[in-house]
Amino acid sequence: MRAVIIGAGYWGPNLIRNFSANNNIDKVLVYDINKSRTDFIHKKFPNVTILESENDILKSDDIDIAVIATPVDKHFELAFKALENGKHVWVEKPFTANTKQASILNELAYKKGLNIFVDHTFIYTGAVRKMKYIIDKNELGDIMYFDSVRINLGLFQSDVNVIWDLAPHDLSIMFYLLDKKPVSVTANGIANYYDHENVAHISIYFENNCFAHFHVNWTSPVKIRRMLAGGTKKMLVFDDMENSEKIKVYDSGIDIKEKEGIYNALVQYRIGDMYSPKLVQTEALTLGVEEFINSIIDKRKPLTNGDDGYNVVRILEAADESIKQKGKLITL
Amino acid sequence: MRAVIIGAGYWGPNLIRNFSANNNIDKVLVYDINKSRTDFIHKKFPNVTILESENDILKSDDIDIAVIATPVDKHFELAFKALENGKHVWVEKPFTANTKQASILNELAYKKGLNIFVDHTFIYTGAVRKMKYIIDKNELGDIMYFDSVRINLGLFQSDVNVIWDLAPHDLSIMFYLLDKKPVSVTANGIANYYDHENVAHISIYFENNCFAHFHVNWTSPVKIRRMLAGGTKKMLVFDDMENSEKIKVYDSGIDIKEKEGIYNALVQYRIGDMYSPKLVQTEALTLGVEEFINSIIDKRKPLTNGDDGYNVVRILEAADESIKQKGKLITL
Amino acid sequence: MRAVIIGAGYWGPNLIRNFSANNNIDKVLVYDINKSRTDFIHKKFPNVTILESENDILKSDDIDIAVIATPVDKHFELAFKALENGKHVWVEKPFTANTKQASILNELAYKKGLNIFVDHTFIYTGAVRKMKYIIDKNELGDIMYFDSVRINLGLFQSDVNVIWDLAPHDLSIMFYLLDKKPVSVTANGIANYYDHENVAHISIYFENNCFAHFHVNWTSPVKIRRMLAGGTKKMLVFDDMENSEKIKVYDSGIDIKEKEGIYNALVQYRIGDMYSPKLVQTEALTLGVEEFINSIIDKRKPLTNGDDGYNVVRILEAADESIKQKGKLITL
Amino acid sequence: MRAVIIGAGYWGPNLIRNFSANNNIDKVLVYDINKSRTDFIHKKFPNVTILESENDILKSDDIDIAVIATPVDKHFELAFKALENGKHVWVEKPFTANTKQASILNELAYKKGLNIFVDHTFIYTGAVRKMKYIIDKNELGDIMYFDSVRINLGLFQSDVNVIWDLAPHDLSIMFYLLDKKPVSVTANGIANYYDHENVAHISIYFENNCFAHFHVNWTSPVKIRRMLAGGTKKMLVFDDMENSEKIKVYDSGIDIKEKEGIYNALVQYRIGDMYSPKLVQTEALTLGVEEFINSIIDKRKPLTNGDDGYNVVRILEAADESIKQKGKLITL
Repeated sequence: MRAVIIGAGYWGPNLIRNFSANNNIDKVLVYDINKSRTDFIHKKFPNVTILESENDILKSDDIDIAVIATPVDKHFELAFKALENGKHVWVEKPFTANTKQASILNELAYKKGLNIFVDHTFIYTGAVRKMKYIIDKNELGDIMYFDSVRINLGLFQSDVNVIWDLAPHDLSIMFYLLDKKPVSVTANGIANYYDHENVAHISIYFENNCFAHFHVNWTSPVKIRRMLAGGTKKMLVFDDMENSEKIKVYDSGIDIKEKEGIYNALVQYRIGDMYSPKLVQTEALTLGVEEFINSIIDKRKPLTNGDDGYNVVRILEAADESIKQKGKLITL
Repeated sequence: MRAVIIGAGYWGPNLIRNFSANNNIDKVLVYDINKSRTDFIHKKFPNVTILESENDILKSDDIDIAVIATPVDKHFELAFKALENGKHVWVEKPFTANTKQASILNELAYKKGLNIFVDHTFIYTGAVRKMKYIIDKNELGDIMYFDSVRINLGLFQSDVNVIWDLAPHDLSIMFYLLDKKPVSVTANGIANYYDHENVAHISIYFENNCFAHFHVNWTSPVKIRRMLAGGTKKMLVFDDMENSEKIKVYDSGIDIKEKEGIYNALVQYRIGDMYSPKLVQTEALTLGVEEFINSIIDKRKPLTNGDDGYNVVRILEAADESIKQKGKLITL
Repeated sequence: MRAVIIGAGYWGPNLIRNFSANNNIDKVLVYDINKSRTDFIHKKFPNVTILESENDILKSDDIDIAVIATPVDKHFELAFKALENGKHVWVEKPFTANTKQASILNELAYKKGLNIFVDHTFIYTGAVRKMKYIIDKNELGDIMYFDSVRINLGLFQSDVNVIWDLAPHDLSIMFYLLDKKPVSVTANGIANYYDHENVAHISIYFENNCFAHFHVNWTSPVKIRRMLAGGTKKMLVFDDMENSEKIKVYDSGIDIKEKEGIYNALVQYRIGDMYSPKLVQTEALTLGVEEFINSIIDKRKPLTNGDDGYNVVRILEAADESIKQKGKLITL
Repeated sequence: MRAVIIGAGYWGPNLIRNFSANNNIDKVLVYDINKSRTDFIHKKFPNVTILESENDILKSDDIDIAVIATPVDKHFELAFKALENGKHVWVEKPFTANTKQASILNELAYKKGLNIFVDHTFIYTGAVRKMKYIIDKNELGDIMYFDSVRINLGLFQSDVNVIWDLAPHDLSIMFYLLDKKPVSVTANGIANYYDHENVAHISIYFENNCFAHFHVNWTSPVKIRRMLAGGTKKMLVFDDMENSEKIKVYDSGIDIKEKEGIYNALVQYRIGDMYSPKLVQTEALTLGVEEFINSIIDKRKPLTNGDDGYNVVRILEAADESIKQKGKLITL
């Protein structure tokens, strides 16, 4: 198969390297609007073909796969053209700028029998796969709350706020791990520098008394990447800033007791052992590319497909609507 | 002066020890509804006088100070009686169960010329005093956001939710540090075990584009006590779980640049040196007792007085109202 | 039983509190050469009897137990007198100033049928007891090496070097955990300020290819309290500066492989899961006092007895001899 | 200039990438005895020329620079041949297998007017350069002790023990930072798996009451990379496992006081503020290649030259001699 990569910014070299290394890919072509960027790519990857224009290539019979790695505002147009011309499409996160675009693309892909892969890369990390394994075998019991913090001092995106930039990672992980239906969303935060929020807090209410919260921040002096999942049986912490021991499972919880007096609590807590499972070290993007290629070969939907992209965009859209109204509850 | 301590639960021994050690206190008396608790106190503090009933003592001329350390639902009644009988009053946090009670007590104390001290202990820690010093000399510039996390696996309180139990600490610190007017409050969270929330997120909007957020949780497998203050010039982190280096000041920030192209951000970040100031180690409660006693002697309001108690209760009340309506914005 | 505590310095209040709280102790008496110190004790512990002189009390029939908590140079004289007068003896670490003194005391106690308890407090911590449990059930396999670091910025002792001050803790733990015979000792270090070493490194060679190393330092800007035990099956870390998760057991190790070429190692490593067991939180000194009292009642040797004291002093003595000759190997 | 890289193992791709990127290098050639390794290099770096034999190339007029990245036992032979044939030489650490070889190479290079660069990479890191800057401006005062720990679970080297594998990093840093003359060396440790030590402790005594210690270990369950430098004025910690804040400077120290009684120390400690300077992020190897190339152009010795290589090897040799005799003091 032949793949064209459109957009060679920050993430571009990783895409080029991983698509080039995949055994089912014969040729990688690259287009970027910025000449100095393609010069850089050419020097770094001499075997890659640099394109002068993105337009023709999406129509060419030479190409099987289009990888859309531009800013989000061009995702829809490029993905639409690629699908129309019979290409399988890989789209960087967030999938689209709104749910309407996501629906159109998903429908078109369905009609054409083509695959859409949304690059929710974290789903392919050893840490998230281990969390999924632990939750699926019911080790935590029922998940009561999910809490995510992703903050650091980062480059502002020119086109979106911090929610659209950072929250897709955490929302995609949440959807992957939790088999629960979100019901409503609220978001609060602040735009200290210009019209895009640099700090945001998103709350999600689920069916069956489950709750999730996401803290994203481009203006934190310290870098924190941590998730908590509180279950009825055990609790889990994923700290992505740890060099090792990223996942810790605590045999901790709450036992409900009868009230016995003014100083006695209704409930008591229990602290037991903790363990930290060994994680597979394979690069997530390598596995993501593999899953995408295999899904095309197997004629099945990939793990992180357009529906997942849609679900994440739906939350982003609702959070944006809520934050503009200082936490107004948005029913999904 | 003579002090009676009413309520000798978890915090009681610390109060007894610190009031006993103060040079202006001649005698400490203790009452607790629970006989086994007063037996314990008697053994631990043989010099303290144990009382059989709380009622008479509040009327006695023998007593100058009443220290109310009961659950919050009895604060108002006991503090009211003490003030009526001419005693200065020390009340544990939260000051009262609602703002109406707080107003009545503050008015009564004013009329009687008596002092109310609300035990916002953190204000007297070396860490918070150092933060205040740093912010007051404008080292951080204008505070843009304040973020606080106080989570662990803790004993549930039988009478209040996690907001009323944990947030008073962080709210009192926020009011002490920030010279800004809060405008509105929202809160979200969940009650997984019974009708009191065990996880809560509070957002506060201020005048002049400042924002604060508080995460409190009784059901976290890990203990986190961390505050961030993001200023226009520098940023500060207070991590209370660190054995040393609790306060770190980062010469980090955001510089606004012109947009130069699709991959260039509107703003860029700057990372410089960090320093961690040495902190005074004196026990906070010792300083709190000293401030209370000195304020009585000096005939002035103490640092953490009934107005501070009122301000904190006002936010708690609003947060409670908001969380019952899933994040409804409450204007203060 | 009645206990006299001789020496009420830094550790004194803890001894007084714990002996007072033990149910088999009727009365606690305290002597200290320093009047201001006994005044402080009297204020803090009004129920304790303050003595004017240490001499008579050791001869008095009123006393069953003598607790020697003076600087080490007075341990022998006081313990000897106490044993001669039929008292059971508790001695702070290090047991004596040399092995000769230790032998004499142990012999005298044996003849008199009295108990010597050496306060190797760490043996009674939840962490060390858990390590002992893990090692005894052979979870680590054969211990290949033991590594201990105990460094911080600490008060210099006027009478001994850093080895005699800090290493007794780690040596007593090593003897408790390792069922192996030490064969020889070397020590290196430096005395930067006066004639007592402030930095020292002790190496111990054991029978059967086992090795231990101890790093003690009074002049480190950071506080580190960490032990590693490398076993043939698993490896263990004890980090006493952690608030929780002090003990971690790693399913890590080395597998021996055949050499296959210039870039292949003879041996390869294996990394598996880690777990951190829950630890009992009871204060170590409470359990130590209990063990001492029970050993008297049961007419048996306590867990940390004079032989353990002797073993630790033997290493200290050898380390001192070695460090004066820059690492000369001392055969035990 | 043209550079041939001989040996393309673990470090090879980094050398190839950095030499290729240097503006003064026109062509990079690579030889490795292992065919599968050169195939891998060819795929990863299509622009690099793969050689069939190392011998001819060292004699070829086409080549200006020989980069020796083989196991240490071939360093001398290859470097000698390269120098004889008029090539400037880059040698990976450790420079040679013994001091005699190092002397011969240094002499030959001197006679031929050629440069030897020893790849003590750490010298070019932002952290070590910052430490050098801080020490050179006398911020720490006189260095009293230097302490280094480099331990983890690592691949055993087939040809050398853990001292020759890991200690060159720390010794080269020590020589770079400390302007003091080492006088004698001792080393202790253990070989648990085969005849090469996997745990070692090296002590170095210096002129003027300074002391250094190095702990290296291939069989630790945790990865620690930390250095302490204790000065008479301040103290410094370099923790290479930290994501940020790798260097911390503590305004801590020891003040000598008069002895005032049995419980008073001769010396007291002082704890002040800490700061952590921002570090330059440039890749160390990039700067190393630049320094080497520039030193050739400028006809001067590079920063990490053959003399530095000799000094490090001299300590390794002495440590080896000492460890075989359980800590025998080796005078340098």
